[in-house]
Amino acid sequence: MEQKETEINELGEFGLIDKLTKDFPLKNPETKKGVGDDAAILSFGDKDVLVTTDLLLEGVHFDVRYVPLKHLGYKAAIVNFSDIYAMNGTPKQITVSIGVSSRFTVEHLEAIYSGIKLACELYGVDMVGGDTSASVTGLVISITCIGVADPKDVVTRDGAKPTDIICVSGDLGAAYMGLQLLERENRVGQGQKDFQPDFAGKEYILERQLKPEARKDIIEELRRQGIKPTAMMDVSDGLSSELLHICKASDTGCRVYEDKIPIDYQTALMAEEFNMNLVTAAMNGGEDYELLFTVPLTDHEKIEKMKGVRMIGYVTKPELGCAMVTRDGAEIPLKAQGWNAFTK
Amino acid sequence: MEQKETEINELGEFGLIDKLTKDFPLKNPETKKGVGDDAAILSFGDKDVLVTTDLLLEGVHFDVRYVPLKHLGYKAAIVNFSDIYAMNGTPKQITVSIGVSSRFTVEHLEAIYSGIKLACELYGVDMVGGDTSASVTGLVISITCIGVADPKDVVTRDGAKPTDIICVSGDLGAAYMGLQLLERENRVGQGQKDFQPDFAGKEYILERQLKPEARKDIIEELRRQGIKPTAMMDVSDGLSSELLHICKASDTGCRVYEDKIPIDYQTALMAEEFNMNLVTAAMNGGEDYELLFTVPLTDHEKIEKMKGVRMIGYVTKPELGCAMVTRDGAEIPLKAQGWNAFTK
Repeated sequence: MEQKETEINELGEFGLIDKLTKDFPLKNPETKKGVGDDAAILSFGDKDVLVTTDLLLEGVHFDVRYVPLKHLGYKAAIVNFSDIYAMNGTPKQITVSIGVSSRFTVEHLEAIYSGIKLACELYGVDMVGGDTSASVTGLVISITCIGVADPKDVVTRDGAKPTDIICVSGDLGAAYMGLQLLERENRVGQGQKDFQPDFAGKEYILERQLKPEARKDIIEELRRQGIKPTAMMDVSDGLSSELLHICKASDTGCRVYEDKIPIDYQTALMAEEFNMNLVTAAMNGGEDYELLFTVPLTDHEKIEKMKGVRMIGYVTKPELGCAMVTRDGAEIPLKAQGWNAFTK
Repeated sequence: MEQKETEINELGEFGLIDKLTKDFPLKNPETKKGVGDDAAILSFGDKDVLVTTDLLLEGVHFDVRYVPLKHLGYKAAIVNFSDIYAMNGTPKQITVSIGVSSRFTVEHLEAIYSGIKLACELYGVDMVGGDTSASVTGLVISITCIGVADPKDVVTRDGAKPTDIICVSGDLGAAYMGLQLLERENRVGQGQKDFQPDFAGKEYILERQLKPEARKDIIEELRRQGIKPTAMMDVSDGLSSELLHICKASDTGCRVYEDKIPIDYQTALMAEEFNMNLVTAAMNGGEDYELLFTVPLTDHEKIEKMKGVRMIGYVTKPELGCAMVTRDGAEIPLKAQGWNAFTK
């Protein structure tokens, strides 16, 4: 543990992943796409098999002081399903590895698994394996999800074309405001026995943080409408960051309109209460698990008919860059302020 | 975090996994086999896709004070490849998730990845994705491996039949003795600047602990010889424990002969130096990553010709139980003393 040192946060999460994974050439004909999308694409027989994985660490991704363990299990599964849907695939199996320290009991573990089980039931996914281990430190949950798709259906991040319409499902920023609320109530309640946090009228943003859903319904509706997005990914790090990913992968620019960003009423109220910029929260909050996708202009009418999908902008040539157009017509360049686990 | 509590070590690792996973019915036709073998078996098109995953936690599975990080990466990949070979499949892809605390630098991570890369090159496996995160505690490595096999080739744990011959590749107990040696030298050297551990003549057991290999060669040789084992698994928790797994899954008993257990000379010397029972080390040490398999009696001659494979006993009816026959003819029931991460 010596030699010339580079601190990890100097590179940031994406820079680090690039550096670590760039020297891994793909060798097998069964590997269609490796690192760089919501899921890897493998080819077995006539099917594309999609693989995604997420590592959740106590104290970094969750805080057991205010996240019920059942919800934690549910969310850990859902975020993986979301990655498979974001490839236009269907999640089929997960493996679940958990490391627990001795302060956890069997009942705690059962609570986590009951959440995973509920998610598996609702989304039709099988739990097929995993690993369970003691941990001398915190709680560790590592889930890998396997999905399947017909090769012709798979949607990656790199297919957006200038003039494509940019769409997003649901609304944004609610999970982030829910987290702010949970953290505040946890601070306020510290050391106070019988402290009862007041969550009245804030149920929606709490649920978005604690028990998000994957947008299976949107994928199914797109299929029914005969729409195949040109590019797609899920919004886990924040809309700004994801738009930059799609534009970089597709070699395009984009314009999104501030007044088109879908935001729920509770999210707006909460931002006001916290004196936070609402659009910043919606653009950079993350953990929305909504679908961000692009479709050709010709699908305009079909998209207009879809419930729960908003057209927020359009794809441009790369030289125009990526920007948000404010209500007064100014252009603000998008920045990936997305949540970064390596920021000190 | 209240309610009636059951401590995790009351159940043991296998009991815990049973308890947590028993209520997960399989729903998808694409899932052929879930929890309970070296890997899950999924069916996509005309191929069986095998999935296995391992979670390695600092302070539980490895100690960075005496495990070089490159070796750690190599071993983390190899143990997953071994699980795929143990199903008679070919590993094709891995995902790698790593959580690191701020005391690790980019160079440390590069060392881990260089070991993973070397393993991928030697075994023809593609690294296709993963997750990188900060950790507020120790180093966490979670690897999932995807393999492929023709459905007719897949070997599970449950096919052993009475009179089948029990075979094991390589030799046993060396990795365990290597670990004992590393731990002793680490204790002895603590606080001594410029301490040089003396590893002369102990290279083999060290390499077995630090840089194990997966027995791709044995799988290939079995194929060349036209042998399909009736049951197979890899020896990760110790021969005793694995024999019990195969016999339980196959509903059989077994007899293995003490004097047939393959043990290397360095392993024997080291056990003597430590005043440890050699056979116990070989039967229960674990981390051998050798292949344990059963074949029909009719394959006896073919197995005899195979280099690096030893016939150590035979499968019996279940009512005879599982036992080791000692040099003087006594029968000692097998116990799963395998390494248990939950033992306090």
